[in-house]
Amino acid sequence: MRSVHVELGERSYPIYIGSGLLPQAAAYLIKHGLSVKSPHLVVTDDKVAPYHLETLKSSLQAAGFRLVISIVKSGEGSKSLSVFENVMTDAIQGGLDRNSSVIALGGGVVGDLAGFVAATYMRGISFIQMPTTILAHDSSVGGKVAVNHLLAKNMIGAFHQPEFVLYDLDTLTTLPPREVSAGLAEMVKHGLIKDEAFAYWCKDHAGELLALDLDALGYGLERGVSIKADVVSQDEREGGLRAILNLGHTIGHAIEAVGGYGEFLHGEAISIGMAGSALLAEALGRKKGIYAETIAMLTALNLPVILPEHLDEDDLMEAMMHDKKFKEGTMVFVVPDSIGSVSIVKDIPQQLVRDILKQLRKGGEAHV
Amino acid sequence: MRSVHVELGERSYPIYIGSGLLPQAAAYLIKHGLSVKSPHLVVTDDKVAPYHLETLKSSLQAAGFRLVISIVKSGEGSKSLSVFENVMTDAIQGGLDRNSSVIALGGGVVGDLAGFVAATYMRGISFIQMPTTILAHDSSVGGKVAVNHLLAKNMIGAFHQPEFVLYDLDTLTTLPPREVSAGLAEMVKHGLIKDEAFAYWCKDHAGELLALDLDALGYGLERGVSIKADVVSQDEREGGLRAILNLGHTIGHAIEAVGGYGEFLHGEAISIGMAGSALLAEALGRKKGIYAETIAMLTALNLPVILPEHLDEDDLMEAMMHDKKFKEGTMVFVVPDSIGSVSIVKDIPQQLVRDILKQLRKGGEAHV
Ligand SMILES: NC(=O)c1ccc[n+]([C@@H]2O[C@H](COP(=O)([O-])OP(=O)(O)OC[C@H]3O[C@@H](n4cnc5c(N)ncnc54)[C@H](O)[C@@H]3O)[C@@H](O)[C@H]2O)c1
Ligand SMILES: NC(=O)c1ccc[n+]([C@@H]2O[C@H](COP(=O)([O-])OP(=O)(O)OC[C@H]3O[C@@H](n4cnc5c(N)ncnc54)[C@H](O)[C@@H]3O)[C@@H](O)[C@H]2O)c1
Ligand SMILES: [Zn+2]
Ligand SMILES: [Zn+2]
Repeated sequence: MRSVHVELGERSYPIYIGSGLLPQAAAYLIKHGLSVKSPHLVVTDDKVAPYHLETLKSSLQAAGFRLVISIVKSGEGSKSLSVFENVMTDAIQGGLDRNSSVIALGGGVVGDLAGFVAATYMRGISFIQMPTTILAHDSSVGGKVAVNHLLAKNMIGAFHQPEFVLYDLDTLTTLPPREVSAGLAEMVKHGLIKDEAFAYWCKDHAGELLALDLDALGYGLERGVSIKADVVSQDEREGGLRAILNLGHTIGHAIEAVGGYGEFLHGEAISIGMAGSALLAEALGRKKGIYAETIAMLTALNLPVILPEHLDEDDLMEAMMHDKKFKEGTMVFVVPDSIGSVSIVKDIPQQLVRDILKQLRKGGEAHV
Repeated sequence: MRSVHVELGERSYPIYIGSGLLPQAAAYLIKHGLSVKSPHLVVTDDKVAPYHLETLKSSLQAAGFRLVISIVKSGEGSKSLSVFENVMTDAIQGGLDRNSSVIALGGGVVGDLAGFVAATYMRGISFIQMPTTILAHDSSVGGKVAVNHLLAKNMIGAFHQPEFVLYDLDTLTTLPPREVSAGLAEMVKHGLIKDEAFAYWCKDHAGELLALDLDALGYGLERGVSIKADVVSQDEREGGLRAILNLGHTIGHAIEAVGGYGEFLHGEAISIGMAGSALLAEALGRKKGIYAETIAMLTALNLPVILPEHLDEDDLMEAMMHDKKFKEGTMVFVVPDSIGSVSIVKDIPQQLVRDILKQLRKGGEAHV
C-alpha cells in the first residue's frame, strides 16, 4: 500500500493507494475516528454501484456503521443543483448529523457532487473520497468540489478537503478503456507541468498503464497525486501557482462546451488542449520540439490530439472568453517552457489563439 | 458613526453602524479595495428595493461601480435552492468574476441567501452586508449563511465572513413595527446570555428602541453585535461556546416549524422560547425570579411570551427532536443561570420539556 500526505496545515490528509483497500474500508473509517453512532451517506452512481457498492457496504456494515445510500445517474448531468437537492433530501431523511460523513464512491462526478453536499450539509461535515476512476486522482487532491450551473461548469462550489482518500486500484478494472485513457491524460499532465522524468515514464509505461498493471498504476497515481498535492499545498485557494494545473484546460473546456459535453470526455478534451498549448509554446519561441514530444506522449496513451473540423472556431473563441480563468477580459494561458515545466502567460493576443486552433485541426502541420 | 471589530484572525472585519451611511456606500467599497472593473451583484427583496435600492445604486454608480441587481420576493420562501439558482443565473449572466462581490441589501433572509451565493459562486467571492432590519444585527455577525431545504431550515449552507458590514440606521425607519419588535428579541437575547446590564438597559430603553430613536438604536445594535462578535471570535465554527447563542431557539424553531413559518416571526418565536428557557431554569433550581424578569423584558419590547393553544405538544416535541442541535438523540438546552449568564445543559428529560411547554401555554402560571 502506498500513501501520499497532502500537506494543508490542519486540513492535511492522507491518500491511501493500493489493491484490496475497499474490502477494508471500515478499518480506515475507524482509524480516522468516524462515529459508529451517526449514519454516513454513501454517494455513488448507477454504473459504479453494481460493481463496487456491495464491497463497501459489507465492510462498513460488518463493523457496525449505519449507512444511507444515494445512487445518482452516471454522467456529468448529475453535477446539477437538482441532483444535489435530491442527495440532500436523502441525507436529511437518513438523519445525518454533524458527526456524520459523506463518502463518495465513484469518479470525479460523484466526488465533486458528494463533496459539495459534504461542504454544505449543516454548513459542512466530513468528506471521504473513494475514487473509482483514474481521472479522479486529480479531483481527489485539492478540495475543489462543485456542481454545474446550466450556463457554466463548476460554477457553484466550495473548497472542502476530505478526511482521507481511499484509492482501491481493483475498482479500476471495470473502467471502460476510453475512461482509462481519459484519466491518464491528467496523469501525464502532472508530468508535463512539473516533472519531466515522470512525463517520459508515462509514455514509456503506456502499455502497462493502459492494461491497468497494478504496479504501474500504483506508481503513476502516487506520482500524479504527489505532484498535484505539492502544487495545492503551496496555493490552497488558487491564488496563483495552482493555475499551472490548468495546462490544456482553457482550450479543453472550450472543446467540451462547444462539443456539448458528451462528445468528448474531459481527459480527451484536455489532451487536445495540451497539444494546443504545446503549439502555442512553439509559436511563442519556447524550446523546439515540445509539440512533437507532447503528442507522442498523448498518442501513446490513446488520446486524441487533433481538433475536429466540426467545432467552430468562433464558438471555441467565445467559449474561451467566457472561461472563468479570464479576469476582466484578458486571455491567459498556461504555456510549456519545456517538457516538465510551464509558465502562466498573460495577454496572449486573440489572433494567435485563432492561429493555434487552425494548426490544431491539422495536427500541427502548419506550425513550423 | 460607531464601529465594531469582529476578530477572526485573517477573516476579521468591521461593522459600521450609523445614520446616513448608505448614501456613502461607494466610499466604503473603495476603502475595502473593491474593484471598479468587475461587476458587483446587489441582492435585495421586493419590499426593501422600493425604499432603499436607489440610494445604494446612486452612490455606487456615481463612483463608477458596475452593478448587477437581483431582486427576490420578500420572505423566508426566498431562502430556497430555486431562488438561489436564479440569483446564480443573474450573477453569471452579469459576468461576475473572482474580483466581484455580492452585496446583501436587506434583512436576514437576503443576507443568508446572498451570503450563500457569495460563498459558492466560483467557490467563493467577497461578501458585503448592508442590513435593513434590526434582526439582521444578529445575522451580520458570525458568517453563517444558508438556504432552507423543504424538510429543514438552514440545512444547506456555509461559513463565509463578510468583508465588512454597513449598517445604516436610517433604513430601519421603514420597518413594520412587528419586525422592529422581532429584531429586538435577538438584541435582548444578547443581553440575557452575556450581559446583565445590557439586558436591563434594553428593558429600560424599550420605548426609545421601539420608536427607533437613533441614539438608543445605535447603542443597542453596537452592544448586540459586540456580544455576538465576542462569542463568535472564540468559536468560529460552532464547536461549543457558540451554542449559547441558541438561547430560546430550540423551542423557538419548533414553534416556527409547527406554526408553518409565517404565523410567527423568528424573533417572536424565540421570545416565547426564551420565556420557556427561563421556566426550565427555575424548574432546574436556578435563581428564582428569572422567569418574571425575562418576561418583563420581553413584554416591554412588545414581544409574545405565551405558547398558543393550537400548537400541538406532540408536534412541538417531534420538531425539537429533529432540531439539528441534538446529536444522537439526546436533548440539549441553553438554560439561564441568572439574567446575563447561561449554560448548556445536556440530557434534559423529555418529560420535563413537556411540562415546560404546558406551563408556557399558561404564561408560566403553574411554575411555582
Ligand atoms: N474537483 C476537482 O479538482 C476536479 C478535477 C478534475 C476533474 N473534476 C471533475 O471530474 C469529473 C470527471 O471525472 P471522471 O472522469 O471520473 O467522471 P465520472 O465520475 O463521470 O466517471 C466516468 C464514467 O465512468 C463510470 N465509472 C466510474 N468508475 C467506474 C468503474 N470503476 N467501473 C466502471 N465504470 C465506472 C462513471 O459512471 C462514468 O460513466 C468532471 O465533472 C470534472 O469537472 C474535478
Ligand atoms: N445567519 C445568521 O446567523 C442568522 C441569524 C439570525 C437569523 N437569521 C435568518 O434571518 C432571517 C430573518 O431575518 P429578518 O427578520 O431580517 O427577515 P427578512 O429579511 O425576511 O426581513 C423581514 C421583513 O421585513 C422586510 N424588510 C426588511 N428590511 C426592511 C426595511 N428596511 N423596510 C421595510 N421592510 C423591510 C422584508 O422584506 C421582510 O418582509 C431568517 O431566515 C433567519 O434564519 C440568520
Ligand atoms: Zn482536468
Ligand atoms: Zn435567531
